[in-house]
Amino acid sequence: MNKLTHLDETGAARMVDVGEKPVTQREAVAQACVAMLPETLELLLSGGHKKGDVFAVARVAGIQAAKKCSDLIPLCHPLMLNSVNVDFESDSQASEVRILARCRVSGKTGVEMEALTAASVAALTIYDMCKAVDRGMEIRSVTLLEKQGGKSGHWQRTDGEA
Amino acid sequence: MNKLTHLDETGAARMVDVGEKPVTQREAVAQACVAMLPETLELLLSGGHKKGDVFAVARVAGIQAAKKCSDLIPLCHPLMLNSVNVDFESDSQASEVRILARCRVSGKTGVEMEALTAASVAALTIYDMCKAVDRGMEIRSVTLLEKQGGKSGHWQRTDGEA
Amino acid sequence: MNKLTHLDETGAARMVDVGEKPVTQREAVAQACVAMLPETLELLLSGGHKKGDVFAVARVAGIQAAKKCSDLIPLCHPLMLNSVNVDFESDSQASEVRILARCRVSGKTGVEMEALTAASVAALTIYDMCKAVDRGMEIRSVTLLEKQGGKSGHWQRTDGEA
Amino acid sequence: MNKLTHLDETGAARMVDVGEKPVTQREAVAQACVAMLPETLELLLSGGHKKGDVFAVARVAGIQAAKKCSDLIPLCHPLMLNSVNVDFESDSQASEVRILARCRVSGKTGVEMEALTAASVAALTIYDMCKAVDRGMEIRSVTLLEKQGGKSGHWQRTDGEA
Amino acid sequence: MNKLTHLDETGAARMVDVGEKPVTQREAVAQACVAMLPETLELLLSGGHKKGDVFAVARVAGIQAAKKCSDLIPLCHPLMLNSVNVDFESDSQASEVRILARCRVSGKTGVEMEALTAASVAALTIYDMCKAVDRGMEIRSVTLLEKQGGKSGHWQRTDGEA
Amino acid sequence: MNKLTHLDETGAARMVDVGEKPVTQREAVAQACVAMLPETLELLLSGGHKKGDVFAVARVAGIQAAKKCSDLIPLCHPLMLNSVNVDFESDSQASEVRILARCRVSGKTGVEMEALTAASVAALTIYDMCKAVDRGMEIRSVTLLEKQGGKSGHWQRTDGEA
Repeated sequence: MNKLTHLDETGAARMVDVGEKPVTQREAVAQACVAMLPETLELLLSGGHKKGDVFAVARVAGIQAAKKCSDLIPLCHPLMLNSVNVDFESDSQASEVRILARCRVSGKTGVEMEALTAASVAALTIYDMCKAVDRGMEIRSVTLLEKQGGKSGHWQRTDGEA
Repeated sequence: MNKLTHLDETGAARMVDVGEKPVTQREAVAQACVAMLPETLELLLSGGHKKGDVFAVARVAGIQAAKKCSDLIPLCHPLMLNSVNVDFESDSQASEVRILARCRVSGKTGVEMEALTAASVAALTIYDMCKAVDRGMEIRSVTLLEKQGGKSGHWQRTDGEA
Repeated sequence: MNKLTHLDETGAARMVDVGEKPVTQREAVAQACVAMLPETLELLLSGGHKKGDVFAVARVAGIQAAKKCSDLIPLCHPLMLNSVNVDFESDSQASEVRILARCRVSGKTGVEMEALTAASVAALTIYDMCKAVDRGMEIRSVTLLEKQGGKSGHWQRTDGEA
Repeated sequence: MNKLTHLDETGAARMVDVGEKPVTQREAVAQACVAMLPETLELLLSGGHKKGDVFAVARVAGIQAAKKCSDLIPLCHPLMLNSVNVDFESDSQASEVRILARCRVSGKTGVEMEALTAASVAALTIYDMCKAVDRGMEIRSVTLLEKQGGKSGHWQRTDGEA
Repeated sequence: MNKLTHLDETGAARMVDVGEKPVTQREAVAQACVAMLPETLELLLSGGHKKGDVFAVARVAGIQAAKKCSDLIPLCHPLMLNSVNVDFESDSQASEVRILARCRVSGKTGVEMEALTAASVAALTIYDMCKAVDRGMEIRSVTLLEKQGGKSGHWQRTDGEA
Repeated sequence: MNKLTHLDETGAARMVDVGEKPVTQREAVAQACVAMLPETLELLLSGGHKKGDVFAVARVAGIQAAKKCSDLIPLCHPLMLNSVNVDFESDSQASEVRILARCRVSGKTGVEMEALTAASVAALTIYDMCKAVDRGMEIRSVTLLEKQGGKSGHWQRTDGEA
């Protein structure tokens, strides 16, 4: 049966030993969505400078957070990321901003947590910068979309999940 | 009209000046939910030690993240938190774990971001510890629930929001 | 005679005791300049998005660095900054970008180091983002321009200095 | 034509993907100079212990800053440095202290930023420890002196630059 | 009966709420000892420069660690330290180096953990710098010596303890 | 004769160059003991939840500290740890808790400092969580127990040491 690999047989937390795992090219893509009032989205998108800067600040925050992942998530291994990208799409219909974070590494463990952390912190940064006008925003649909490399191979999220 | 206070008149990002604001008792409560497969939730809840440790690790991660908030969110002010609590509820119906983070400070700015960051990082930690058995988990409903203190007074989330 | 307050009578380093100093409003302004090839400056200034993002990234880096000052400079006291601003001016004549960083605090010690650190790290970030096209850039004129609050009162840099 | 590799085609910041780059031995040497009043330099150089400690503190600060580089400069890759050296020379003629920082890595990207960051933070630390007697000090000539390894081969600063 | 205040009634960890506690002047002194071979101590003490630098590096490490205390010890509150001193005494009889760390704060909680952390990290730094010649060193007698300020008043360690 | 490799020939601190050293599997085990009053140990061990959480918090603190080692110990190299384990044993006879930390890496330098730092910070965390009931606790016997890999081969602590 499946078990939680971050706990040993007595239930104690540990950093799983990855010493025997080969170094492979790994990649993960995660998303986070920030749902907001239509007028907040409007404000965010209006004006060249303003738009640029909210997203620019959130992008830097997301990239920096990916690099801090093993400091934030207790049982994550330190990793030397090859690249991090954070992109934004706005969806007026859903009145939300969608964040896509993509991380790559040549390493022994996957980069799912780095991508999820980048997307989450970028979302929190958007919340922070817009909260003066819209305290009720919601961060939702924080999910792993895709994962490549390592023993488990290529994995893609399908609609039915969670 | 409303505007984004983290941007100056030219659209450049800045840390808003809080020098003139009075020090008051402030509190914020935020939540994050982690939706997972029923068997993942079962695994998480079964066994005394195991349950204890996943939640214990996620709780520490959340508390530590609240203290790192101004390092993660670029325009947040450094704060000397008076307290941080992170609690967990499981909902078998919804097949999710709900995280509640409460932060308090005697300060010049609110602690919404600290509470939201604590809840988010606790959720990411649960994801990390369970991802070996359930890669499709979703972090959702990351929202501010309540906020007290400061100029804007008492604010509570109502159902209709976002 | 004057002496270095960060060393005790035996020459050992220490964090100077500020326990007896009153909390006052303090402010400091520092600058750093990045001299570059005219074509690098041109590239930096051309195009709306591109310009926005180099300066936006450097601005965030500078603001974050101000908050990390006591972690970087061993004998600096931790401070709860009220505000940080980082601005940029380009000077085609001198072929340089000038960075101005302004920090404010209600505290027991000045914020000179925070402002100087913000300006320096913003300058290093510009170097990093342009080094692929101009490895010979020079960061220069990193100086304190102005300082207010505290026992030493208002201080302004005059041209003759250093 | 040359372009800024840290920005993608839409001008958004990103951490450049170094996944395809080979691991090679890389080295970079950077300098920073701190110009001060002659009496400040005198004070700094007089006395065995005192001299030792200002430079010893600045050396540690520089070494530690090299290791924090990817946390300070948003688009820098995390690196596992093989070595960091920080040395000091005083020039009574120019009334300045010159800092030399040398970093080495076996990695996929260069260590220019690590060396420049080490030199800059060592300079800021000298400023901090002497500012009580000389607020007008200037950090200048922060430059890359030499760079080896990687695709661009051996590069040395020549006098005409910047 | 006494209980552990860092655990709530269900045994869950929490950052104790200090919001109601008054700000007072607080101070704590802690020690750590590093026992080593007589020839290691000899090497450490011989030569002006060498001695200076091992202790100088360990002193900086201890001071910096005091400032990082709330990042290292999960349930510690962030504090704005007024001062940190780290001193060293060598005892040829016991063949050990004794480290004394003193921290002061104007705050709502004590600074015992900051002083103990400073002493411990200074001791670890001495271990690191001497381990090439003496792997069997032992860090011992890490204790709080004295504590002032706050509800519990003045406390001094007596010989019989622990 | 033996010398301190972290100091160059002039006595200045440096990060030793490990560029020429081969990558090997390395492991280190360190211990730290926390001596306390019998009733404190009793309190720590009584009750399922309470016991779990003190040790769970200390375990996370130790694991996180191992990853921060190069940020705490100035001349330590950054390392990408393969695994970290932190375990606890209680000894009613000696009225102490014994912490065992084991670190592994595939790298160019040993992981002694990471294991010693993990054990020390776990011990400090136990002190922090129990200090309200027992201020006189003592951290003692912080030692390296075993070390494998690298040029110096297998080393085990023998009773006579230090």
